[in-house]
Amino acid sequence: MSIIQNDFQRWTADKQQRIETLLDSILPPVEIAPQRLHGAMRYAVLGRGKRIRPLLAFAAGELAQADVERVAIAAAVTELVHAYSLVHDDLPCMDDDVLRRGKPTCHVEYDEATALLCGDALQSLAFQLIADYRLADEPAAQLEMVKLLAIATGSRGMAGGQAIDLESIGKNLSLLEVEAMHIHKTGALIRAAVLFGARCGNSLDDEQFGQLDRYAQCMGLAFQVVDDLLDAESTTATLGKTAGKDAGNNKPTYVSLLGLSATRDLALSLRGDALDALGSFGAQATRLREIADYIVLRKF
Amino acid sequence: MSIIQNDFQRWTADKQQRIETLLDSILPPVEIAPQRLHGAMRYAVLGRGKRIRPLLAFAAGELAQADVERVAIAAAVTELVHAYSLVHDDLPCMDDDVLRRGKPTCHVEYDEATALLCGDALQSLAFQLIADYRLADEPAAQLEMVKLLAIATGSRGMAGGQAIDLESIGKNLSLLEVEAMHIHKTGALIRAAVLFGARCGNSLDDEQFGQLDRYAQCMGLAFQVVDDLLDAESTTATLGKTAGKDAGNNKPTYVSLLGLSATRDLALSLRGDALDALGSFGAQATRLREIADYIVLRKF
Repeated sequence: MSIIQNDFQRWTADKQQRIETLLDSILPPVEIAPQRLHGAMRYAVLGRGKRIRPLLAFAAGELAQADVERVAIAAAVTELVHAYSLVHDDLPCMDDDVLRRGKPTCHVEYDEATALLCGDALQSLAFQLIADYRLADEPAAQLEMVKLLAIATGSRGMAGGQAIDLESIGKNLSLLEVEAMHIHKTGALIRAAVLFGARCGNSLDDEQFGQLDRYAQCMGLAFQVVDDLLDAESTTATLGKTAGKDAGNNKPTYVSLLGLSATRDLALSLRGDALDALGSFGAQATRLREIADYIVLRKF
Repeated sequence: MSIIQNDFQRWTADKQQRIETLLDSILPPVEIAPQRLHGAMRYAVLGRGKRIRPLLAFAAGELAQADVERVAIAAAVTELVHAYSLVHDDLPCMDDDVLRRGKPTCHVEYDEATALLCGDALQSLAFQLIADYRLADEPAAQLEMVKLLAIATGSRGMAGGQAIDLESIGKNLSLLEVEAMHIHKTGALIRAAVLFGARCGNSLDDEQFGQLDRYAQCMGLAFQVVDDLLDAESTTATLGKTAGKDAGNNKPTYVSLLGLSATRDLALSLRGDALDALGSFGAQATRLREIADYIVLRKF
């Protein structure tokens, strides 16, 4: 990354700082009982995350001319859910990982029971935020956001994707099956983050919302494709989490199915589709376009 | 229990059947992927639970003259959350229990990872229901229910109570500390169940709502006091879950702090307080009074 920040890098840094400050103020203080649980929640959420989901929410909020204070809360909701999913995924009965964002995973730093409850409580807190703040002009729109998040996290969303992932270990999945797994496991929450940002505003008509949704779905999948690439190519030190884990776990990935070169082509193709979906939007979609590049071309 | 059912027993059986049928229709079918996860969710929820929380919701709904179809959904929400909490509580890193409702616990019947995801997805589903159905005349009232449930399940509610419980093992807690633990761990969701039923109607004024809330809080605590009694007095066969577990785990309970006799007195005293709180209500509170008796005087 160049020392001289460009406009997108400044925007990203500003939004990352904003979401960090907001999450810090939203999470229960460690001084309040149960202190160990609150400590674990803060440990799991605060720190060095890339905040991709919040960035997507902010960018979609700009497209929909949404109030940025509202979008910030919606963005925090998606990050709380993301953090909860990482804490549970890292548990010994799941991926059994010890390193996350360059630090010991939550159950290593605390203990398994605290990590379990930490994830549970972060999920509750995410829903609490949607109900606790004014995120849209109408309460009915906020209820829609509750529904959207619940579906994105549930058995036909993120949790379901994890279940499919577990069942897939050691199996020969087709490309379509791998894609279906990732649409649930990673894509659903990324899609929800984009739609959350847009729902905080009200300037998009149904057709525009559909186009944004198509962008969101392409990004959800592209993110995982690039994750597979990074997992295959990177070292643990640069990745901040255990590298080469998928191959070690005998998990089917895009790289194992397609090879490195075709996986790179797929990521670029999804980026193209995402940009096409934004074709009818003007400068208000600039950040969304830049994030598409950031996600697909990211290096750590 | 007498062979001839009295009116309350018929009401209870009717509501238990109703909630069973509703939960069966709400839970994703096992034929839909991810099948193993959906199977675990159904296994964890359907079957022989006493459905205390739904019964409380139905009874409070009658007090508030709420539409019974709406109350049934609200009741199902509370039972989904209760089932999720049991699945996570039974995990090896928590209470490590193998028997629940007379059957193998979810992680024994399936596996730990599936049980973890099962609980996660049940929590999502509970929030989804609140947003998916019309439970109150105004969406704002439903958002209030989202908030109520989120707080009741979060780090200052059920999950927090579990965390305090874990920290308490082997420690000498005071009676006040044990009470604070149970108010969070068990009481918060029982209280939410009562308030959910009432929120589905709109016939209670603020003062009446406050009286109902006092009843709910007494019941939440009474339930745990009686649970401690049963755990100390019963056998595993009659209890349907591992008996004597608390003493074996060196957990502070009402019985270990007060002894059997004073614990019985406390349960009866809480029942008295709960009935007092309903003093200004007439026949519409009959079911709530009967449930107070049922909870405090129950034998299995």
